[in-house]
Amino acid sequence: MNEPLERLVNSFRSLPGVGLKTAQRYAYFIIQSTDEIAHDFAESIIDAKKKIKYCKKCGDYTDQDICYLCQSRNPEIICVVTEPKDVRVMEKVKNFNGVYHVLHGTLSPLDGRGPDDIRIKELLQRIQQDGTKEVIMATNTDVEGEATAMYIASLLKPLGIKVTRIAQGVSLGSDLEFADEITLTKAIDNRVEL
Amino acid sequence: MNEPLERLVNSFRSLPGVGLKTAQRYAYFIIQSTDEIAHDFAESIIDAKKKIKYCKKCGDYTDQDICYLCQSRNPEIICVVTEPKDVRVMEKVKNFNGVYHVLHGTLSPLDGRGPDDIRIKELLQRIQQDGTKEVIMATNTDVEGEATAMYIASLLKPLGIKVTRIAQGVSLGSDLEFADEITLTKAIDNRVEL
Repeated sequence: MNEPLERLVNSFRSLPGVGLKTAQRYAYFIIQSTDEIAHDFAESIIDAKKKIKYCKKCGDYTDQDICYLCQSRNPEIICVVTEPKDVRVMEKVKNFNGVYHVLHGTLSPLDGRGPDDIRIKELLQRIQQDGTKEVIMATNTDVEGEATAMYIASLLKPLGIKVTRIAQGVSLGSDLEFADEITLTKAIDNRVEL
Repeated sequence: MNEPLERLVNSFRSLPGVGLKTAQRYAYFIIQSTDEIAHDFAESIIDAKKKIKYCKKCGDYTDQDICYLCQSRNPEIICVVTEPKDVRVMEKVKNFNGVYHVLHGTLSPLDGRGPDDIRIKELLQRIQQDGTKEVIMATNTDVEGEATAMYIASLLKPLGIKVTRIAQGVSLGSDLEFADEITLTKAIDNRVEL
């Protein structure tokens, strides 16, 4: 009935987690904003889609051939993550000065994803080229993330590389009673001396 | 650092109720989608902004001079609402066959919004042109919405127009204990015989 409006609402509905009401709210915001803001919005989508590609080294999103993190940081320590968004998450750690490697997935035999389907080959190449000393496995702590970390560790250890896993235990500032059994077991297993 | 990505995230952050994490999630969705989907998204924004304007009769958003509701429905009953989005809300009522009038705001002396700042003049013109028999006030039930409804009623009644207000009472399917005092008072005052 009002085709341009419906089309705009449908665009917003395609975003993850957005239902009809939220999409309408976004659409009305666009319609009520100035021409300049709306054009800027549209242009930022086109521009990002055109310019953003994978970093040739780490596989994170970048608008250059080699991303600024790979260019500026210590290549001797590589933090391995599953998705580009995990790089943003890990970057909250202020005193980490190493680089990243994005696998773009986890091993998942049930879904038919094997070692050749994620960026393991590229990781091995980098390690040989850059004289890497330590690889920190920061894959998720679910079954697939754990299995991927274990598999990569089994490949790297024979090469004499130090492979570590991010610590698992109770969250800081959280109430013990809300921690699950497996987390508590890990917290006991990995206890440190005071 | 990654300017196109940051720009895209900032675009999404400008939407109502969207914080950094949600904006990043939307941005990654765009980057991971196909070129076609991304261009379609951007185009739907430009297109809506270009084509959508106010209906010359009711003030709702439309891509034509007179919106399809004004063209196809019974003009003898006008439902007065505050914002274009309220038309979508009222359209859930399946057996309403009248037209709408969007005020684009409420009277609010504290904010300096008087009768000339909302579309009251246009309402009076329509009523005289279209032989309107009834005006249903469906402004919000807050203080400003009530005051606006009362003010417009006081203008229309001398013209011999029937002015009604949407019923106020307890919601259907809700538990009585959650209804507030004012709603309960209205529910008693407006009780109907069974």
